Amino acid sequence: MATDIKTSELKNPVDVAEYLFRRLHEVGVRSVHGLPGDYNLVALDYIPKNGLRWVGNVNELNAGYAADGYARVKGISAIVTTFGVGELSAINAISGAYSEYVPIVHIVGYPSTISQRNGLLLHHTLGNGDFNVFANMSRNVSCNVALLNDPHEAATQIDHAIRECYLQSRPVYISLPTDMVRKKIEGARLEKPLDLTFPPNDEEKENYVVEVVLKYLHAAKNPAILVDACAQRHRALDETHELIKKTGIPTFVAPMGKGAVDETLPNYGGVYAGDGSNAGVRERLESSDLVLSIGAIKSDFNTAGFTYRISQLNTIDFHSNYTRVKYSEYPGVRMNGVLRKVAAKIGKLNVQEGPIPNNRIPAEERKSEDTTITQAWFWPRLGQWLEPKDIVITETGTANFGIWETRFPKDVTAISQVLWGSIGYATGSCQGAALAAKELGVKRTILFTGDGSFQLTAQEVSTMIRNGLSPILFVINNAGYTIERYIHGFDADYNDIPDWQYTKLPEVFGAKDAKTYQVRTKEEVNRLFEDRDFSQGDKLRFVEIFMPRDDAPIALKSTAEAAAKTNAKME
Amino acid sequence: MATDIKTSELKNPVDVAEYLFRRLHEVGVRSVHGLPGDYNLVALDYIPKNGLRWVGNVNELNAGYAADGYARVKGISAIVTTFGVGELSAINAISGAYSEYVPIVHIVGYPSTISQRNGLLLHHTLGNGDFNVFANMSRNVSCNVALLNDPHEAATQIDHAIRECYLQSRPVYISLPTDMVRKKIEGARLEKPLDLTFPPNDEEKENYVVEVVLKYLHAAKNPAILVDACAQRHRALDETHELIKKTGIPTFVAPMGKGAVDETLPNYGGVYAGDGSNAGVRERLESSDLVLSIGAIKSDFNTAGFTYRISQLNTIDFHSNYTRVKYSEYPGVRMNGVLRKVAAKIGKLNVQEGPIPNNRIPAEERKSEDTTITQAWFWPRLGQWLEPKDIVITETGTANFGIWETRFPKDVTAISQVLWGSIGYATGSCQGAALAAKELGVKRTILFTGDGSFQLTAQEVSTMIRNGLSPILFVINNAGYTIERYIHGFDADYNDIPDWQYTKLPEVFGAKDAKTYQVRTKEEVNRLFEDRDFSQGDKLRFVEIFMPRDDAPIALKSTAEAAAKTNAKME
Repeated sequence: MATDIKTSELKNPVDVAEYLFRRLHEVGVRSVHGLPGDYNLVALDYIPKNGLRWVGNVNELNAGYAADGYARVKGISAIVTTFGVGELSAINAISGAYSEYVPIVHIVGYPSTISQRNGLLLHHTLGNGDFNVFANMSRNVSCNVALLNDPHEAATQIDHAIRECYLQSRPVYISLPTDMVRKKIEGARLEKPLDLTFPPNDEEKENYVVEVVLKYLHAAKNPAILVDACAQRHRALDETHELIKKTGIPTFVAPMGKGAVDETLPNYGGVYAGDGSNAGVRERLESSDLVLSIGAIKSDFNTAGFTYRISQLNTIDFHSNYTRVKYSEYPGVRMNGVLRKVAAKIGKLNVQEGPIPNNRIPAEERKSEDTTITQAWFWPRLGQWLEPKDIVITETGTANFGIWETRFPKDVTAISQVLWGSIGYATGSCQGAALAAKELGVKRTILFTGDGSFQLTAQEVSTMIRNGLSPILFVINNAGYTIERYIHGFDADYNDIPDWQYTKLPEVFGAKDAKTYQVRTKEEVNRLFEDRDFSQGDKLRFVEIFMPRDDAPIALKSTAEAAAKTNAKME
Repeated sequence: MATDIKTSELKNPVDVAEYLFRRLHEVGVRSVHGLPGDYNLVALDYIPKNGLRWVGNVNELNAGYAADGYARVKGISAIVTTFGVGELSAINAISGAYSEYVPIVHIVGYPSTISQRNGLLLHHTLGNGDFNVFANMSRNVSCNVALLNDPHEAATQIDHAIRECYLQSRPVYISLPTDMVRKKIEGARLEKPLDLTFPPNDEEKENYVVEVVLKYLHAAKNPAILVDACAQRHRALDETHELIKKTGIPTFVAPMGKGAVDETLPNYGGVYAGDGSNAGVRERLESSDLVLSIGAIKSDFNTAGFTYRISQLNTIDFHSNYTRVKYSEYPGVRMNGVLRKVAAKIGKLNVQEGPIPNNRIPAEERKSEDTTITQAWFWPRLGQWLEPKDIVITETGTANFGIWETRFPKDVTAISQVLWGSIGYATGSCQGAALAAKELGVKRTILFTGDGSFQLTAQEVSTMIRNGLSPILFVINNAGYTIERYIHGFDADYNDIPDWQYTKLPEVFGAKDAKTYQVRTKEEVNRLFEDRDFSQGDKLRFVEIFMPRDDAPIALKSTAEAAAKTNAKME
């Protein structure tokens, strides 16, 4: 059991919960996701008192996805759940954040330290007196676990957890037992902000790596840059952009890095994903004699089924915890400092131009008189309609493959879950992203999800309405799990879904003035995009867009085929 | 990697997936819950081929709850999810089944053994090449984990897992890698059914315990029987009923045992839960000089906040793995054999009558002219309307406390989750229970859930519709999480929920002919209960029933107060 700190020993006594929420406010959190539960209720009282908004999600999985979306826009987020039932409902979302390097502070309301010590047979337990079992499960998907059982250690634990969350860009887990919420701890610590700077590289080592990189860069005849998710998640985009702009080297993104690079730059060249690359990208990049690969995650879906074909002999890899030049590894050399120095010291380079992506409708589609909205037509058309600063969330499925064919305006934030790939993610994530956008004064948050995926987490639309958010939601009605059809069971019943009346949902969920649309033809899409009320409105807009069941972006088709082959391989 | 068995060595070669699903069919499973995912698609092809129905749930948490409900009605159930994302979404439901002793076979579609061996960076992984991490999480909430990586062992592993699931009455976890699905194994094993009998007690030891029990029973002046959940979950209800009928001893149930005992028996006396007991029960039971306690789980919510006051000196405990007479323990002595012999050998006993519960409306409510539907009025009124064989599911909150005041007709099955208490459970569970009921020819499955709880898993109504089920759904609209209000934050925003138009949902979810109702007064409830179309109909019926925000069953109030005290206790 926790022994109290004598209040007389404290310069500025504050309650543990106050300390925690003030730290979260300090690092940029303004809204806390989650659901009430009997072991977290008293803690929730501290949220509004410390300048934070309580979101009040509809279930914990959705809340976890929302916290993920919020963190991707604002840099960090927080979620509160209750012991056992609540935290486990969120654990898929937390695992996704761990997999994809998204920093979420997960606070779990625990039974009191006294109940734990006495092994009480409480509800929300397995009935075996084990109060550590759920924390142990979460250890697998958290970069730090802080069990707040002692007021003497609580402040240090909280500070350490939040700092690790930010620096490692992954979830942390904080238990908050009911009797710890109001325990007094030293508030004077709060006067000193958390140090969120990355420890610098060893200078001599960093300079050495910089020289090696410069040497190869100067020798290269047609270098290229490939930016992936970890450049963004590990907060190296400023340095990356310095290098891209200063050198003029043709720059590409992997699917998980989509949106990380300013796509209006003259040397932006499109998406590289092996067989699923944008037109001309594969040829240009794979013939490059030096690829600066920044923050790569070479997963199956991020490489269109492992069809990535860049020799390690032509590659320099930049990561958060090491640099690798061809086969020479430099452990502990973080990319940020290296990239900055390379950009600063680089002189004249050989640069051969690369392809330039655009949002032109493919010729075949332009010529076609078919009015059906096809995947090949829609995604470049979308690119013509997007605006600077838009936040675009695409669900695993046709949407997050289709978006490879959309060239973004400046400062677009793109969100998708290419590695973890949990369907249902995007709708939850959209709620958090839209809330973060509102806090930042960003106008448009736009969701693209499939009908099958939408059904998993549909009720999160109700949380958007409750919080006065007005995103633009596109639900692609293509009669089922199209991505699964392309892997196996094209016409199987199990890839079908029940047919819902989607556009009635905003009203059912309490929206007073949401606008709903159904679009079935290219012409209707064009009219919708030209409608000022739609494009510039301030209400929640919900679009059911009909696309053929059997149509898919070409990159999805090739990736799914590769996945099916990997699954079926017998030896 | 798995080495194949030579087909020539097999008398009757069958595919691993066929073997698995045939075993599930053999033990009584007829419908398989779950969602398709790219690592389980090929396995799903085997479901219809082996006489099973694929349910096709809307998300995995709901599927897990549904599998729980199905198992509580049919004795065992199965769910198929996909690696990582799918299984983790279901893990809260699986944990609930572990906590509450519900046998679910959880089959997880895994990446191929070859991909695992090669550590491929696949989607649905943490990106760290660890393919065991999710199974390890599930070990905490499964009584057996079978990783099917070798055809030589697969049949034995499957048989062992299903048998453990049934006998321990808890979830098991079976991994099914994509390349194992079609591997050939020995089908001749299937000719011999699984042995699902419990190993008998050591006879001499059992007889000794029987004599001790008989001695105390004959000496007792006013014995009583208290039946709890484990009597049901460990399949000892036949033996329990023999004892109750043969002896005529006044018999009570704990909340988790509600529905386990035939409530039309003349010696059925009502619900015992300390301060939350039915009228007269506490006095009778706590003054008894010998309580035969069968399958007790003395959790907080099952004892109205640990207000259980029966001395161990007056208790004989019967369990699945031990018997305890006062303080004398008999490890390994399972209740079934003991109860059967005690019933057979018992002669004349001293029996003092106990209270007899009824469904009379309390006097205060009868006198009141207020038309508002109160909790005190509703639950006994419900008891007047219920019919034999009804399946009644009550959600954690006002419903699963309110049901203590309902006396059931014969053969009613009651489902609730008193120990795990995950809100949202009941709606999912109702889908599985209704499907099981349909398979058994049982007519009515009736859900009572609160508005807050319903929102977590509302889309499972769509799965009911898709599967042609016609349960009767009551959503209690009382404006938020009432059970939480009674614990803390009575008027706090975080206990509020968004206001939905509930009765529109069946149509939105695709129902062609569902009937919907809104009832706001006692008179409207009476008319509804008298409406033959409603009571005897064969369509899905959805009732929004309005009750006051601040009203709760008296047992909930006292339990919540006790929970708040336990939470707040500072030393």
